Amino acid sequence: MRCIKSFLVKHPEYIPLFKHTSIGIEREGHRIDPDGNLAKTGHPKTLDGSSHNHYIQRDFADTQIELVSPPAYDEGEVSGWLSAIHAVARRSFEHGEALWPYSMPPALPEDSQIHVAQLDEADVKYREYLVKVYGKKRQMLSGIHYNMQIDPEFIAMGYEREGQNYPNIAAYTSDFYMRLARNFLRHQWILVYLFGATPYADLSFYEADEAPFTYPLRSIRNSRYGYINHPDVQFTFENLNAYVETLEENVREGRLIAEKEFYSNVRLRGAGTARELLDKGIKYLEFRMLDIQPDCNFGLSWREITFMKYFILYLLWRDYQCDMASVHQGIAMKTTVAEEHALSQTVYLDEGLDIIKGMREMAEALSASEELIPILDEMKVRLLDPKQTPAGRMASELGNVDAWLAEGKRLANAWQEMALAEPYQLNGFSDMELSTQILLFDAIQQGLHIDILDRKEQFIRLTYHDHQEYIKKGNITRLDSMVAYPLMENKEVSKRLVQEAGYHTPRSIAFTSLEAVRAAIGQFTDRPIVIKPKSTNMGLGLAVFPKGQNAEVLMAACREAFKYDRMILLEDFAGGDEYRFFVLKGQTEAILKRESAHVIGDGKHTISELVAEKNQHPWRGHNHRRPLEVIKTGEAERLCLLDQGYEFSSVPKALKRVNLRENSNISTGGDSLAMRIGSDIHPSYVDIANGIAKALEVQVTGLDILIKDPKQAASKDNYAFIEANFNPMMMMHIYPLKGEGVRLTRKLLRVLFPEHSSL
Amino acid sequence: MRCIKSFLVKHPEYIPLFKHTSIGIEREGHRIDPDGNLAKTGHPKTLDGSSHNHYIQRDFADTQIELVSPPAYDEGEVSGWLSAIHAVARRSFEHGEALWPYSMPPALPEDSQIHVAQLDEADVKYREYLVKVYGKKRQMLSGIHYNMQIDPEFIAMGYEREGQNYPNIAAYTSDFYMRLARNFLRHQWILVYLFGATPYADLSFYEADEAPFTYPLRSIRNSRYGYINHPDVQFTFENLNAYVETLEENVREGRLIAEKEFYSNVRLRGAGTARELLDKGIKYLEFRMLDIQPDCNFGLSWREITFMKYFILYLLWRDYQCDMASVHQGIAMKTTVAEEHALSQTVYLDEGLDIIKGMREMAEALSASEELIPILDEMKVRLLDPKQTPAGRMASELGNVDAWLAEGKRLANAWQEMALAEPYQLNGFSDMELSTQILLFDAIQQGLHIDILDRKEQFIRLTYHDHQEYIKKGNITRLDSMVAYPLMENKEVSKRLVQEAGYHTPRSIAFTSLEAVRAAIGQFTDRPIVIKPKSTNMGLGLAVFPKGQNAEVLMAACREAFKYDRMILLEDFAGGDEYRFFVLKGQTEAILKRESAHVIGDGKHTISELVAEKNQHPWRGHNHRRPLEVIKTGEAERLCLLDQGYEFSSVPKALKRVNLRENSNISTGGDSLAMRIGSDIHPSYVDIANGIAKALEVQVTGLDILIKDPKQAASKDNYAFIEANFNPMMMMHIYPLKGEGVRLTRKLLRVLFPEHSSL
Repeated sequence: MRCIKSFLVKHPEYIPLFKHTSIGIEREGHRIDPDGNLAKTGHPKTLDGSSHNHYIQRDFADTQIELVSPPAYDEGEVSGWLSAIHAVARRSFEHGEALWPYSMPPALPEDSQIHVAQLDEADVKYREYLVKVYGKKRQMLSGIHYNMQIDPEFIAMGYEREGQNYPNIAAYTSDFYMRLARNFLRHQWILVYLFGATPYADLSFYEADEAPFTYPLRSIRNSRYGYINHPDVQFTFENLNAYVETLEENVREGRLIAEKEFYSNVRLRGAGTARELLDKGIKYLEFRMLDIQPDCNFGLSWREITFMKYFILYLLWRDYQCDMASVHQGIAMKTTVAEEHALSQTVYLDEGLDIIKGMREMAEALSASEELIPILDEMKVRLLDPKQTPAGRMASELGNVDAWLAEGKRLANAWQEMALAEPYQLNGFSDMELSTQILLFDAIQQGLHIDILDRKEQFIRLTYHDHQEYIKKGNITRLDSMVAYPLMENKEVSKRLVQEAGYHTPRSIAFTSLEAVRAAIGQFTDRPIVIKPKSTNMGLGLAVFPKGQNAEVLMAACREAFKYDRMILLEDFAGGDEYRFFVLKGQTEAILKRESAHVIGDGKHTISELVAEKNQHPWRGHNHRRPLEVIKTGEAERLCLLDQGYEFSSVPKALKRVNLRENSNISTGGDSLAMRIGSDIHPSYVDIANGIAKALEVQVTGLDILIKDPKQAASKDNYAFIEANFNPMMMMHIYPLKGEGVRLTRKLLRVLFPEHSSL
Repeated sequence: MRCIKSFLVKHPEYIPLFKHTSIGIEREGHRIDPDGNLAKTGHPKTLDGSSHNHYIQRDFADTQIELVSPPAYDEGEVSGWLSAIHAVARRSFEHGEALWPYSMPPALPEDSQIHVAQLDEADVKYREYLVKVYGKKRQMLSGIHYNMQIDPEFIAMGYEREGQNYPNIAAYTSDFYMRLARNFLRHQWILVYLFGATPYADLSFYEADEAPFTYPLRSIRNSRYGYINHPDVQFTFENLNAYVETLEENVREGRLIAEKEFYSNVRLRGAGTARELLDKGIKYLEFRMLDIQPDCNFGLSWREITFMKYFILYLLWRDYQCDMASVHQGIAMKTTVAEEHALSQTVYLDEGLDIIKGMREMAEALSASEELIPILDEMKVRLLDPKQTPAGRMASELGNVDAWLAEGKRLANAWQEMALAEPYQLNGFSDMELSTQILLFDAIQQGLHIDILDRKEQFIRLTYHDHQEYIKKGNITRLDSMVAYPLMENKEVSKRLVQEAGYHTPRSIAFTSLEAVRAAIGQFTDRPIVIKPKSTNMGLGLAVFPKGQNAEVLMAACREAFKYDRMILLEDFAGGDEYRFFVLKGQTEAILKRESAHVIGDGKHTISELVAEKNQHPWRGHNHRRPLEVIKTGEAERLCLLDQGYEFSSVPKALKRVNLRENSNISTGGDSLAMRIGSDIHPSYVDIANGIAKALEVQVTGLDILIKDPKQAASKDNYAFIEANFNPMMMMHIYPLKGEGVRLTRKLLRVLFPEHSSL
């Protein structure tokens, strides 16, 4: 579309559409061992290594992985995805391995020690060809590929306004992108200047007949020693037709073995072969010259992602008229800038400053100042002061190849440590619930395609080949039917079904009015009882009373319970400790003993101090942002202490257990203790839990069962089913306070995708 | 349990348990034709006629049905069930047939014209034997059988207190019930007096050798001409062991062909054979002497059900000590009372008054005065004034057999008419949602066993043989998975999936803040648009605007929409009328055009008058108690009229359509017009609806689709998917204002129980 600038100034309502670009990033990188050398291990076994993995793929060498973010419209989301995929990759490495942070490889071994990844046969053949033509070392370069699509609706609007001379919208779109490609190739040098980050290379990178650079430059990867085609290879971006003809001729005449061997810094995307583009039209462009940014743990930060986006939009906005002469000029400028001394001013400074100035004007016109201006300010500083560029900083701060290699190793290890520090969350998705974060982690690791359908509602779709599964809030899936919810949540109904199936559950009588309770309350004073609302999950309105309680006290508790439901239950209190059984498709997959928030006295410290100490545990946090919650010291806790004759300032005796809460919920600071079947808990309880889940016809449930002595086999008198929980918590099983965690998210995926062999 | 009275006076907390009795009623009755003769047709074809039908069974003759209420604890629930089952039976009759309201049959044809129902072979043989021994006519009597169980927990408590001499609780329970049986047989006469309702019999009822009664008596059915065993048949209720021995001896020695031929007014229940009772213990008793009460359309009203219950409890409370001599005395008293002149005082008046007095005292002690005292007052009047008994009333008001037969016919027809008057609801369940009422109707008709799991939550369970299905709110079933709800309710997600599958849905952009809307609002003024909250079903917060609307007006509507959701959608408005497709398991089963509440002018009447007239339609009601809602004349309607330049007092021109509402929801008075596929709507839209349901992976859904011209085949431009509704309304399809209804409840049952052949 021509004159986008003047169009948007006249029609500012289309600015959101113009800015609505889809972005996807690919980042390559090598695994290294603790010594900073290429790892000797194969592709990590914990990753799905098939070529169907959408996010983590094997690249040329066995040590090289490619991390691919799915297309997203929001720059924050793009960097979030990239960050998440990096976290998954790093946590999947073998112990001690890390991800090399540079586009240039670390010191390389003999060619024979570099193992080409063994994928399918055709692929292996192609790679062998590349080795022959370009050498193995050149293949070891790692880069960033930036894919971007202008909103097709924006292009369609242009077609409506000025597409009269095109046979169809596909032709118009292709022309739109060819123009953009030319503009980009002409101006790409500025990206090499601003983001070039390969000032050095280990000598092992050079082939025997190559003369190593003797000074720190901006980007070896974009220099003459980068990955570039032989000068014989012809190309044109004049128009799509000519592009296709020329490319096919190169292949036909043997200058390229395949179209994909054509290494332009812009690739036309949208079809399997160039010729197909003529029909389908170009869908988006891939920009391939960015170096990995070593100051970002996932290679390209939000800042660069945002700058790139607006730089490309600026090429459209400014409406440069670039022909093929400009393209060739631009490619030469790019190489010139790449080979400039990293600490020297660039020869194209004026053009650079002009671009930044133009982008600044555009930022204001597009209402993008807030995000963009600070970035442009920084880029202007880089233009004026080469020391502020990534290459310049490394040249001035490190000064030689060895220091630079050492710094690479340090960075790799620092980021590896960071990735391992909080295994219960997933960078980039930390606004979501922990269980969904872990599920996404497992899905990325196993190469399932992910669609976030509704981020705030924790609603995702996973796809493996043609098989789709929807998951909400971590474990609401198609496994359970629509009636599973009422069967679990209606406590009266679930107890009825469980009883019908022959399992023990405390006698419980339902009431719908206080009058009805009053008429019957007498028969509840001769035994310990629980009073609770019929539905509700979190222990709200629940009260427990010993035998012989005064009827009026019980009535008061009933009145309270009626606040939460129109029906309440008066239930025989069954003794024993509370165990949570996580049952998945008929099988108990994890068992926890849950203990109410408590501290154990040591005869020296106050309860407040003991609580503070217990809260030091790194897995305790607030508002379900960590697997466990901190113990609070509020009114509820104060009253609970009071019942036991304590205040927060009391100093309990050594080994004395003091409860801060009566209920055992993890959400109020409770402890989770993982139980092993057999040694900790008798297998007969597992049979009971599986049977109860079957009676309720539910596939995913958390069953609360009271057990008097878990090592004794179950009998009617020593256990009692209390309730079944819909959408049960998984994190407390995955990361229990004590005992071995069970990766329930992975087990859920295995049930959902039984055909996925590596799950 | 001995001394229940003094025990309960001391332990009033057990009174609720004592009163907690389970009651089930069986009522037999003949179908008659419009002339008042036995129907000539077979068992109604619309009923499941298998012996597995739990509620409506075939009795001795083809014309005779047995209506069986399931056991229930609450007298109101019992009469509700009985009423419901009667309604189902009556609505299943062929046109013109009705249910004979007396225990005595109508005028009987020649024996050869009485067709014995053909069930399985053994059963047919048994019935042939009965005909031989007792004659066909005697089999034509119809009665009420009253089954009652004392709460086993109450009996268990007695066992704990005084069961030391019994080998086990089963033996204690049996003894408890044997004592009750003896007491009952001794005192049953009072029930014959109070509820005897067979003063007359057509002469055709008598065998040739029998002398017809020449006066109106209380109960021919309980007289010498009732259905009684030969005097040779021995029996004892002394203890269960003796009972079993004696009964088996009768069979062994040929006085009875089978145990079930023993016709006592009390039957011991709980096992297949008498001997099995020795092991299992008696579970409950069946009391068989009540006549059908002709003043109740379902044979036994709440009043009699309640009186019976408390009469039986009174027999326990009073702790009568009846031996077998008393039993024989009681049986003789019963026959005496049955054969007394209907208008004469009974000879046992004093005992009767004593019982009523004792029951009155018990009523107060049991806190049952409110329900029971008015009934006892009435029964006392009956004792003192025989004209007030059912038999007495018929004798005094009708006076002879012919008038009595004519009255039977009149009653039968009146109640038939009543049953047909409101086909969209089910008596006894009218507190539930209409769709659940109709579903229960279909389930009863087809003999599916019903459990009402939670009445207020419309949660039921249906069972056919061993196959159980849960249904909530009419159509929430296991057919849909747990993710179906979010896939339908999240409008953004459902549109995305529908679009991915290649169907047309208006472009829609989601916003999460007013600021974001403001930045983009300009692009929405150049087209008609809909503003709505992302989730919500009932049209709340939704607004429609024509092209060229002022941005501030749109912003105000957005502000309103944000009240209902944190995310709102701005959606291109697609033209056309709104159609609702009900899709069940991949198939569109019903289509409605929905029109907003409106009237058509006639040039004479005011809008208020036109609305009032339209509201006369018998299917329009309030609060979803009928299939359609009345059109209201409130503020929303006033504003809608104002928009069109009207007030309620305006008189629109002839044929002028005036809307009272902009939305087309049935719940705000809209019209429902059933569409026939082919003649009303092109089949291509059915393919689209089926495809959309598939794309959303939902089995039960109501799809809203805008269609410009339903007779034109669908193309991208002439339809638009708007939304999918979870738990869609069924009543509007079953009872549309115009066109043929589709029995969706029945179709749903067919999908849930594919193995049920008559569904």
